[in-house]
Amino acid sequence: MTDTTAASHDSIRAVQWQGDHLRLLDQRLLPGEESWIDCRDAGQVTAAIRDLAVRGAPAIGISAAWGVAMAARQNVPLEPVLASLRAARPTAVNLMWALDRMKKRIAAGADAEALLLEARAIQDEDLAANRRMGELGASMIAPGSGVLTHCNTGSLATAGYGTALGVIRAGVAAQRIARVYAGETRPWQQGARLTMWELMRDGIPAELIADSAAAHLMKSGAVQWVIVGADRIAANGDTANKIGTYQLAIVAKYHGVKFMVVAPSSTVDMATGNGEEIEIELRDPAELLSIAGRRTVVEGAQAWNPVFDVAPAELIDAIVTERGVIEHPNSMAMQLMFGC
Amino acid sequence: MTDTTAASHDSIRAVQWQGDHLRLLDQRLLPGEESWIDCRDAGQVTAAIRDLAVRGAPAIGISAAWGVAMAARQNVPLEPVLASLRAARPTAVNLMWALDRMKKRIAAGADAEALLLEARAIQDEDLAANRRMGELGASMIAPGSGVLTHCNTGSLATAGYGTALGVIRAGVAAQRIARVYAGETRPWQQGARLTMWELMRDGIPAELIADSAAAHLMKSGAVQWVIVGADRIAANGDTANKIGTYQLAIVAKYHGVKFMVVAPSSTVDMATGNGEEIEIELRDPAELLSIAGRRTVVEGAQAWNPVFDVAPAELIDAIVTERGVIEHPNSMAMQLMFGC
Repeated sequence: MTDTTAASHDSIRAVQWQGDHLRLLDQRLLPGEESWIDCRDAGQVTAAIRDLAVRGAPAIGISAAWGVAMAARQNVPLEPVLASLRAARPTAVNLMWALDRMKKRIAAGADAEALLLEARAIQDEDLAANRRMGELGASMIAPGSGVLTHCNTGSLATAGYGTALGVIRAGVAAQRIARVYAGETRPWQQGARLTMWELMRDGIPAELIADSAAAHLMKSGAVQWVIVGADRIAANGDTANKIGTYQLAIVAKYHGVKFMVVAPSSTVDMATGNGEEIEIELRDPAELLSIAGRRTVVEGAQAWNPVFDVAPAELIDAIVTERGVIEHPNSMAMQLMFGC
Repeated sequence: MTDTTAASHDSIRAVQWQGDHLRLLDQRLLPGEESWIDCRDAGQVTAAIRDLAVRGAPAIGISAAWGVAMAARQNVPLEPVLASLRAARPTAVNLMWALDRMKKRIAAGADAEALLLEARAIQDEDLAANRRMGELGASMIAPGSGVLTHCNTGSLATAGYGTALGVIRAGVAAQRIARVYAGETRPWQQGARLTMWELMRDGIPAELIADSAAAHLMKSGAVQWVIVGADRIAANGDTANKIGTYQLAIVAKYHGVKFMVVAPSSTVDMATGNGEEIEIELRDPAELLSIAGRRTVVEGAQAWNPVFDVAPAELIDAIVTERGVIEHPNSMAMQLMFGC
């Protein structure tokens, strides 16, 4: 099983530079359909990010970097491209980080070729970071453990392998993780649609649960760790991630279940002091009012649809980045690892 | 607005005795379609309960009572009818309570006419209990409060008016409740489909949230009470209710938000010492693997689908029944109110 696992998780590459354009796996249609979107200009990349064809904080950052490089290759003015990509999704800091990195190269006079190499480097570094985080995170998990994850943090959300799902892959391969549960992650069902798809491809047995069943699952003793990704980690360790993460952190603490955040250092935003300062993206209420294109809620009804929330540092047992692990995160520990 | 409210919430009667058969509003099709099922024998009532055409603990009990009375009217042997109705759903104790009440009348030699009157009494008493609970519960809520509810506990789930939703109706009418939020309640979407429908009919402004957004909502300060129904309340106050209730109780406590359980005394099961003894119904994993008839999860995937969980008494601020309110429930207080 380990062999096929290694083979198959390497095979999903949702963000692919094709020499002259960017090819993205349309994650909105999975698992029913594997459809690819060919983005031939930066505007199409921006739309793909905004409309969730590509999602997952690292994958968004990588896609944006390719978008900038493509624009440079096409001799398009880069300032408006940078601005519109930056505005596509407000919460994921990897997006800003990747754009800042491209911007710095542009300011230093890099040509299109150099910008393509920079985008490639961002992508390759992300994959390497995921492998490293997988090892680091898995080493913290006692053999025979059960884990619960939320949303999708796998190959689809990154350059490959995954952040939280990378730790789960590594933990299963190392026979530390014996049971995997995935929350379905309303309203976009990333857990149900994407994480279960990736796990099945890897031959990793897993069970899907309703998001609201997490506390009952923890009470049963089946889970020792909650393992999630992040969209932004503030300077004190407060972590913004998919809506429901905060709730999981609270119920994990209540049950003595450990809580691990796994994200590349590009997710750390030392300029944001704490979670209160993180802008939480509110999306269209319609996402809650219809399911699979079918209206499920009475006409005229209102909905409140924040798609991220913030787990405070005091509920987090470990933040795992490629630079190392911070246990019981706080401002001082964060400063030591991520300060300039 | 108060006038139309009073008028409209009286108009939904999901369980209707038609003189010779039982008519049930098919709650699986709401809000898109108002379709009625005419049950002409007890077997059809059993099927309607098992397959969730009728749901909500009090409504299930009432429907079962009518099923028994109908069988008596048709000279069908009653023992197998009682047994199959009892087995239709394991968690809701109102079902057992209503059947026991009918059984006692049968044992006392009641004829079909008397059994019809008994079923009518069970239904009428439930409505009266809901009105009383509405008053009692609403009186605990400070003016200007926001409340969050889960699942559907309204007219559809009861003889009319509702348990938790009855308190919300009374609280809105008394201008104590200023904001109402409903969790969508995966996987059956009772909150999204049914509660939002009832609230809109009553002209009560409400917002739907994903179940996993509850903690983030509480953190915003918008909610002062979580108000839920119950499927079974044990002798120590532990309360079984729709999956997700336990999670809400934990996150409410974490935020200092109060937690109210509203249920008729027929929901109290003094023969069950505590929540550990309550059988939790596991339903078909398929309920999580498809949405609106469309497969959303990769073929071959597994799911774990408990449809109830238990909120422990220590997380409950008030249990409201038609007999009165128990604050900070425990075995002694429960014994005083519900002991023989």
